[in-house]
Amino acid sequence: MSLTVVGSVAFDSVETPAAKRDRMLGGAATHFALAASFFDDVHVVGVVGDDFTAEHESVLTSHKIDIADIERVEGGKTFFWAGRYHDNMNSRDTLDTQLNVFETFEPKLSEASKNAETLFLANIVPAIQLGVLEQCEKATFTAVDSMDLWINIAKEDLLKVIAKVDCIILNDEEIEMLTGKGTIVSAAQALLDLGPSIVVAKQGKYGAGVITKEGSFWLPAYPLHEVADPTGAGDSFAGGFVGYLAAHPERPITLEVLRRAMAYGSAVASFNVEEFGTDRVSRLTGPEVVARVKELAAITQFDDTTQVDLRR
Amino acid sequence: MSLTVVGSVAFDSVETPAAKRDRMLGGAATHFALAASFFDDVHVVGVVGDDFTAEHESVLTSHKIDIADIERVEGGKTFFWAGRYHDNMNSRDTLDTQLNVFETFEPKLSEASKNAETLFLANIVPAIQLGVLEQCEKATFTAVDSMDLWINIAKEDLLKVIAKVDCIILNDEEIEMLTGKGTIVSAAQALLDLGPSIVVAKQGKYGAGVITKEGSFWLPAYPLHEVADPTGAGDSFAGGFVGYLAAHPERPITLEVLRRAMAYGSAVASFNVEEFGTDRVSRLTGPEVVARVKELAAITQFDDTTQVDLRR
Repeated sequence: MSLTVVGSVAFDSVETPAAKRDRMLGGAATHFALAASFFDDVHVVGVVGDDFTAEHESVLTSHKIDIADIERVEGGKTFFWAGRYHDNMNSRDTLDTQLNVFETFEPKLSEASKNAETLFLANIVPAIQLGVLEQCEKATFTAVDSMDLWINIAKEDLLKVIAKVDCIILNDEEIEMLTGKGTIVSAAQALLDLGPSIVVAKQGKYGAGVITKEGSFWLPAYPLHEVADPTGAGDSFAGGFVGYLAAHPERPITLEVLRRAMAYGSAVASFNVEEFGTDRVSRLTGPEVVARVKELAAITQFDDTTQVDLRR
Repeated sequence: MSLTVVGSVAFDSVETPAAKRDRMLGGAATHFALAASFFDDVHVVGVVGDDFTAEHESVLTSHKIDIADIERVEGGKTFFWAGRYHDNMNSRDTLDTQLNVFETFEPKLSEASKNAETLFLANIVPAIQLGVLEQCEKATFTAVDSMDLWINIAKEDLLKVIAKVDCIILNDEEIEMLTGKGTIVSAAQALLDLGPSIVVAKQGKYGAGVITKEGSFWLPAYPLHEVADPTGAGDSFAGGFVGYLAAHPERPITLEVLRRAMAYGSAVASFNVEEFGTDRVSRLTGPEVVARVKELAAITQFDDTTQVDLRR
């Protein structure tokens, strides 16, 4: 089995109150692929300039991630983003965005990428997502991410994408913005009516929830003593979540399987933010992920069977 | 056994995008007491004006809440607050605050209130909290709430209170502000070093966490389709949480007991926001609370024992 991700490969410069790092390997497809590589063969479809070196390639290929569909534009420069996080690490300012070769990105999918059973459309122009969806007819599970920018300027295209995918993964505030609903439950139910059978609401440092017609499941983020760099946490989460589902191909997907997918996504994401860029997830091991999933279970579960005498 | 709460009894006028209600019974002590009355005998220590009628009294006394220590100031007016919630109900503007008789509030505790085994100091001037703590020497469990205002203008007094109590219950951002730490885990650990053995971090619509030296537990908020009025949710949560601990007097309190206390607090708080003011909790029944605790368990628990084959 295999999993194709289409999205940005980038260089990120990140400032936090504690430190600063320049031009680290980043981008949604990069963080997603590293997380998903715990679960399945991953093909990355993206574009880079000739500033993307063998060293950058090896971050992906050392985890058996297929980079044949990362197009290299000679004389071009890779997508660059710079940002600064505020004190509590939950909000940030973008200092610089240079789309470079990503501005004219036209995903070119090999047969291997087209034939993947699982497809993840990372956050890019909805019209491009739509084109990729049409090329990947064999995918039995498709998921999409997006952002407020596309809700504001390309909502119609985005709704076409949403109508075709099995799963949408968005920040909770974006789900509310997209649907005009005031609670995440009512907003998610509005999205379920548009086509997807699974809605994932990312809640930043607070965790995430998954909502289906069968019910919902909510998981707090793993509580870290220190956060070095939140960049890519959402993509790592999506990579672990979608990767887990790719590796468990029984369909339809039950809420029971979704719960565990959420836990694995959340575990990988919690490692991602412990260090800058891809540093931590690059050297992360399976047993570490499994141990953190067990910790997540331990700090979120309680015994509801104890008899309590209520006076009213 | 009994539980004393010292804090505000108020009238609230609340506007939301959907509706508007004037001069409802509210205040931290009111919401706390209604929630705690599921678990223990509750004494409320507060102050009101002569606009506080028999009808308002009966909201409390009908649940066997002792109001003998709610002082009535003849010719005075009860504390009044007016606020407007924004679209997503997570932020609000204060439109009016009239402290009235609350401005010169000097808690007068009867022997019954002084002798309670459990004491909750709702959000008031830290110097007053300190005075009450000194009067309640027999309390075997004491908990305190506060707010950003006191962190800014009365931090020294607040730290004296914190040094004397068993448990502090605050919004996560206030805990970070109070300690100058950037994550809730590091901030809570800094508070544990100041005296309390239990730190509760309220996270608004996202839920809450409890941190002790033994470990931590995190519980998402119960996901509601509609939220009518978030006012008093934090006080209802504290009432359910502290009330549960009052009814389970084994000391020291284990993390196992704290987990269930969190679930009961969260359950009652989720009902509080379903309707305006005290409307929903006033007629809430024990079986409804127990059922919601079971629902909270069902939507937050996952099986971490399934074998997963990871490729790395």
